[in-house]
Amino acid sequence: MQNFIFQNSVKIVFGKGQISKLSSLIDTNKKVMLLYGGGSIKRNGVYDQVMESLKNHTVVEFSGIEPNPQYGTLMRAVQMVRNEKVDFLLAVGGGSVLDGTKFISAATNFKGYAWDIIAKNAPLTGVTLPIGTIITLPATGSEMNANFVVTNEDTKEKLGMNKPEVLPQFSILDPEAIYSLPEKQVSNGIVDSFIHTTEQYLTYPDHGYLQDRQAEAILKTLIEIGPKYLKDKTNYELASNFMWCATNALNGNISVGMPQDWVTHMIGHELTALYGVDHGQSLAIVLPGVLEVKKEEKAEKLLQYAERVWDITEGTNEEKIDLAIQKTIDFFESLGVKTRLSDYNIDDSKFEMIRQRLTKRNMLLTGERKSFTPEDAVKVLELRK
Amino acid sequence: MQNFIFQNSVKIVFGKGQISKLSSLIDTNKKVMLLYGGGSIKRNGVYDQVMESLKNHTVVEFSGIEPNPQYGTLMRAVQMVRNEKVDFLLAVGGGSVLDGTKFISAATNFKGYAWDIIAKNAPLTGVTLPIGTIITLPATGSEMNANFVVTNEDTKEKLGMNKPEVLPQFSILDPEAIYSLPEKQVSNGIVDSFIHTTEQYLTYPDHGYLQDRQAEAILKTLIEIGPKYLKDKTNYELASNFMWCATNALNGNISVGMPQDWVTHMIGHELTALYGVDHGQSLAIVLPGVLEVKKEEKAEKLLQYAERVWDITEGTNEEKIDLAIQKTIDFFESLGVKTRLSDYNIDDSKFEMIRQRLTKRNMLLTGERKSFTPEDAVKVLELRK
Repeated sequence: MQNFIFQNSVKIVFGKGQISKLSSLIDTNKKVMLLYGGGSIKRNGVYDQVMESLKNHTVVEFSGIEPNPQYGTLMRAVQMVRNEKVDFLLAVGGGSVLDGTKFISAATNFKGYAWDIIAKNAPLTGVTLPIGTIITLPATGSEMNANFVVTNEDTKEKLGMNKPEVLPQFSILDPEAIYSLPEKQVSNGIVDSFIHTTEQYLTYPDHGYLQDRQAEAILKTLIEIGPKYLKDKTNYELASNFMWCATNALNGNISVGMPQDWVTHMIGHELTALYGVDHGQSLAIVLPGVLEVKKEEKAEKLLQYAERVWDITEGTNEEKIDLAIQKTIDFFESLGVKTRLSDYNIDDSKFEMIRQRLTKRNMLLTGERKSFTPEDAVKVLELRK
Repeated sequence: MQNFIFQNSVKIVFGKGQISKLSSLIDTNKKVMLLYGGGSIKRNGVYDQVMESLKNHTVVEFSGIEPNPQYGTLMRAVQMVRNEKVDFLLAVGGGSVLDGTKFISAATNFKGYAWDIIAKNAPLTGVTLPIGTIITLPATGSEMNANFVVTNEDTKEKLGMNKPEVLPQFSILDPEAIYSLPEKQVSNGIVDSFIHTTEQYLTYPDHGYLQDRQAEAILKTLIEIGPKYLKDKTNYELASNFMWCATNALNGNISVGMPQDWVTHMIGHELTALYGVDHGQSLAIVLPGVLEVKKEEKAEKLLQYAERVWDITEGTNEEKIDLAIQKTIDFFESLGVKTRLSDYNIDDSKFEMIRQRLTKRNMLLTGERKSFTPEDAVKVLELRK
């Protein structure tokens, strides 16, 4: 176990009816910008609950933050924040809205070219705006971390960043707010939460016995509830567990002192940026390939995964590992998320471009052992045709 | 799963050598009071590391905080804090030092009779002092929560309280700092961490599938590492896991939205207050009795505990539950912690007094179902003779 520093001060307000607490969570003297996406929050009633709770606040709105939030869109919001002298950002939506809002918070008082915050990890020179969130799509864990991923439509780049300054002050998690999600978003969210966990778990043993078991707790819960929840989307208890798993998968708890991988996300982001495939879908395609290409290096943890998460007791170690990878694929497919590039009509025409982009971004040696190369990324994609 | 609010902002600084970070964790303009116990921190080198790191701070010392910290001792510290105009409290030691420091923080600017903070949950009328901690005995989780337990030597009462205002700003966890602990303190600490977890887990099912598995993660890790660590107390990896389990057992994470019991602690505190038995020992005596007396009400979770934590697959449900309780007892005994009152030469002469005290303190119906009575406490003790 490596030395670590852990701090996560986000106030989680969890449960049915909790959106009504908004009025007490934001000072009434704050001018609030309500940020959201395409309008689903108007159809599912969340918008009305928010406006009712904030009836004594001054609220301006910015809507239209798209999936894989775009730099151009977010900079329009930044301009509006400046013009309207907004001093509190309330993000209501999925990970894209939350991530976009974090970027807006960081960019509003940033001196310089704001894309550098993402592309060059530029230090935040100005004060960030405080953020509250209401998450309506469990998946990214953005409600309890300081990560954000933004897409630059000009350069066709999708890149992630972490800035402690944009950690939300509070996040409201109301399981009833996710009842009306389309099936595809639910299944993508389950896959996303699952693979956030494997990125922090399927590496090499480093004596994090508790962290390992905490990661396995999330994986086993998702395997148990995922398919059930897809069939019963207004089941409060299943919705609650899905939501809480998604948050715990990426709130920093399971990774303290442990090696991390994140290669699946790195390649997945390229597939989304270049082919437009959903984030969850991209991960479901890539993960089995990464596990295959790095099977030897990950053997010990893969075996533990086979035995503890999938309860595989028969066979040689290699057979157990192969079966665990197959069961992972079957799990994603059982959720309706296809796992082959051909399922999405993706050909190999841009594999070389991906290799070049990773090389150019200096992703020469990545993964938990700093041994994963841009050439390995092509191998992974070849395996997932 | 019930609605919940969760927030834990403690900064955890974990690992070897981290005590040297103290100087950057406390502003140099703060006047620091270093609080500790009987001097073990001088023998194990922690005191020297602290003073080296704080060489540019003004530091006053208060030592002699005893196990089960006493109100009288703590009020002497309060007087010194006021006289010396201290503005930062650094607690270095085990749970008793940390708990006592929280009380000192709460009492310093409290208007009124300070024991009321504990006995009557009096609101904190004055500003509390900021706290940092260096934990040298993993057990209570005090380093990452706002709980504190204080003993009043006049009334022979040992009572607990929780005040968010006294949550530590930071806690340093250096596994090397626990190498020299006496065996008894290690085994008590393992038992304490284990039973903190069961108090939040062995209740009734409430659809907290992830919380259940997170609790099982701690229990299984303690079972795995506990006996090994006792035989190998300078093993860094085992020390790290013991330490991190103790923190996670009571940092609030596993109990969110879930029923809790705490009857074992309630009775255990009486045993410590009246007979002077160690806290960990008192819990090891009481828990098996509580599980026995409330076996029917806890049946579903006890069965889950048997199957998932102890991997018991054979027999009827009742047999599985009985075996799990026996394995729990065997585990404590394997750590060298005896589980019978007679092992500590405790007779039944004060059982009636315990019943009366619980009755007087209005502990008429407690536990996760509000069904545990003072008479049940006597039944538990009779079973553990």
